[in-house]
Amino acid sequence: MSDPIVIIGSGFAAYQLVKAIRRQDANAHLCVITADDGHDYNKPDLSHVFSKAQNKDDLVLATGEEFAQQHQLTLLSGSKVDSIDAQSHCVRVNGERIHYSKLVLATGASPYIPLIEGNGVERVRTLNSLDEFAEHHDALNDAQNVMVLGGGLIGVEIALDLANAGKNVVLVEPAPTLMVNQLPELVGLKLQQHLRSQGIDIHTNAKVEQLNQLGNKQSARLNNDLVLEVDEVVVCAGLRANTELALSTGALVNKGIVVDQTMQTTLVDIYALGDCAEFMGEVRAYLQPILLSANALAKTLLGTPTEVVLPTMMVKVKTPSYPIQLAGVTSGSEIERWQIDAQSHGMVAKAYNSDNQPIGFIATDQMASQAFALLRELATKY
Amino acid sequence: MSDPIVIIGSGFAAYQLVKAIRRQDANAHLCVITADDGHDYNKPDLSHVFSKAQNKDDLVLATGEEFAQQHQLTLLSGSKVDSIDAQSHCVRVNGERIHYSKLVLATGASPYIPLIEGNGVERVRTLNSLDEFAEHHDALNDAQNVMVLGGGLIGVEIALDLANAGKNVVLVEPAPTLMVNQLPELVGLKLQQHLRSQGIDIHTNAKVEQLNQLGNKQSARLNNDLVLEVDEVVVCAGLRANTELALSTGALVNKGIVVDQTMQTTLVDIYALGDCAEFMGEVRAYLQPILLSANALAKTLLGTPTEVVLPTMMVKVKTPSYPIQLAGVTSGSEIERWQIDAQSHGMVAKAYNSDNQPIGFIATDQMASQAFALLRELATKY
Repeated sequence: MSDPIVIIGSGFAAYQLVKAIRRQDANAHLCVITADDGHDYNKPDLSHVFSKAQNKDDLVLATGEEFAQQHQLTLLSGSKVDSIDAQSHCVRVNGERIHYSKLVLATGASPYIPLIEGNGVERVRTLNSLDEFAEHHDALNDAQNVMVLGGGLIGVEIALDLANAGKNVVLVEPAPTLMVNQLPELVGLKLQQHLRSQGIDIHTNAKVEQLNQLGNKQSARLNNDLVLEVDEVVVCAGLRANTELALSTGALVNKGIVVDQTMQTTLVDIYALGDCAEFMGEVRAYLQPILLSANALAKTLLGTPTEVVLPTMMVKVKTPSYPIQLAGVTSGSEIERWQIDAQSHGMVAKAYNSDNQPIGFIATDQMASQAFALLRELATKY
Repeated sequence: MSDPIVIIGSGFAAYQLVKAIRRQDANAHLCVITADDGHDYNKPDLSHVFSKAQNKDDLVLATGEEFAQQHQLTLLSGSKVDSIDAQSHCVRVNGERIHYSKLVLATGASPYIPLIEGNGVERVRTLNSLDEFAEHHDALNDAQNVMVLGGGLIGVEIALDLANAGKNVVLVEPAPTLMVNQLPELVGLKLQQHLRSQGIDIHTNAKVEQLNQLGNKQSARLNNDLVLEVDEVVVCAGLRANTELALSTGALVNKGIVVDQTMQTTLVDIYALGDCAEFMGEVRAYLQPILLSANALAKTLLGTPTEVVLPTMMVKVKTPSYPIQLAGVTSGSEIERWQIDAQSHGMVAKAYNSDNQPIGFIATDQMASQAFALLRELATKY
């Protein structure tokens, strides 16, 4: 039997790849090595666990053992890879050497914790994986007053979820508006207005400079000298690709592990996928590109080198009381102007470049239902 | 000699009427009766007195005496009209009876003071006239922390002026956004964002429920239980037409003194002009309609009955760091949707009705310079 395809990691990207491989080949020899317990779960569900009163068991679609059995793979859970020898095609783990035919790094990303003074930082909560959720679920579930650090896409989703679960939520964002990586100022302001109407206290242009544990509470001092006392602090300040293993193996790393059009790293037979990979200059921590690159990579790994082609991507923000769907280029200097159609039941904002071509859009509220029609318009024109 | 044209009031409307009459007739017999001192000043200047460090003397264009001399009129200053006898065409003032050929009520409007508990209400400041400004100038000039009640057009102008003068300003507005009578939500939110960037602390959906004097300070408790301590409180919560005299004379009064197309009240030879008059169902407390109706009324009073024709009105908001110009219908249920062109240097928002006709617009920042071109577009299409 040939050496297995070895996948390091058991997150969304890793398991989408396993499923894609199995759809094409029932017999390929597969091995998954993960530091976690290897349970299969739907990561986007983490954005509405509190309002749905779910716990870890509700989220697990299959335990690691079940998943391994269903997909006929060797699972090494709770196992941290010590090193990779790219030359001899082997991985060192648990004191053993495992030879691979192809190796996939799906090591994911870790929450970025901003530099904050004080001992409260030791007790901040993150929700970027099933394990993190399991670790912090009870504390957050019991909390009445929660501070969310970071008003990006995930911070907004989590803040609204916690508010919908009946908690008092304060959202702190360093930028002047929310979701600056996805939304222009006017749409960000409208979203902020909606979140405020849902009882969320929002501080923009604001950072926590000091965080101290005060008994069971956390006391946060903002840069505007405001002091807020809450039960718990959730950090949603972005992710940093986990690249240590790739770096120590000698692969090129930039913001993420740099991959080519087939998701191959700069090392032969070593690939990277998901939140740890940098594809065409960007780490794409969204569902759709991960699904598409997992499908292409499965073909490549099974012997048919296949380039990943990413169409204009649609993102659905999980803010059920104020739906937002967006696609294409919706932030950055490429945008010359926005054309916004604002009605009482929502808005459609279209981004145009300096050649007056539509290059992205955002559709909100009841007008979010126009998203797919708008996507076609974008695809044909741009 | 015939009985004079008598004008009650010496504000912007009254004096624009005097000037318009004098442009057409050097000899008409004119009498102005005013409870004030009758000084001529440019009322819009009151929106930037603090940042320009002006006092009352800087604003006075001509004293009452000078104005009376220049325009050859009889001025009764410091004189409150006791009653009007419409039948016998005479006004009772200072124990005398003055007969008129035509009478113009230019009694203006008074600041509305919201119902607030506590003894601080006795010390709130208003800035709706030269006299009010003179009365409150020193207190506001000396204040470091000022609360402005009301985020309508005037409240926004005054708040920005005070902030530009180096004061800490907190603006409290009961509606969810600023200038709701003029701006749609998105533009109001953008304005709010700008004012915040100028250091103004803004509370929307907020009312002062209690205001108490605390030594030299004012302590305000908001409906969200926030307590704010400031040096002074300025009220910009709208105006109420001064209609008592008209009412006691028997003229029809609604929101203001009801006038017909020639500015005539329901009483023969009695007219109303300016902030006290209700023309076609609305009190129009803006410069342009007052100027146009003063011009038409001058002709009527001099013997040529002339209907007032108001074109689509342009309003320039006095927010120098974020210019806003608007025209036509920019609020209310007639608007079906807004089409907004947002660029880094400003935006143009056009209002459309359910027949998809452009009925109003707002132009901001550097794009405010497009206002006159937009106005022509509106005028021809609507």
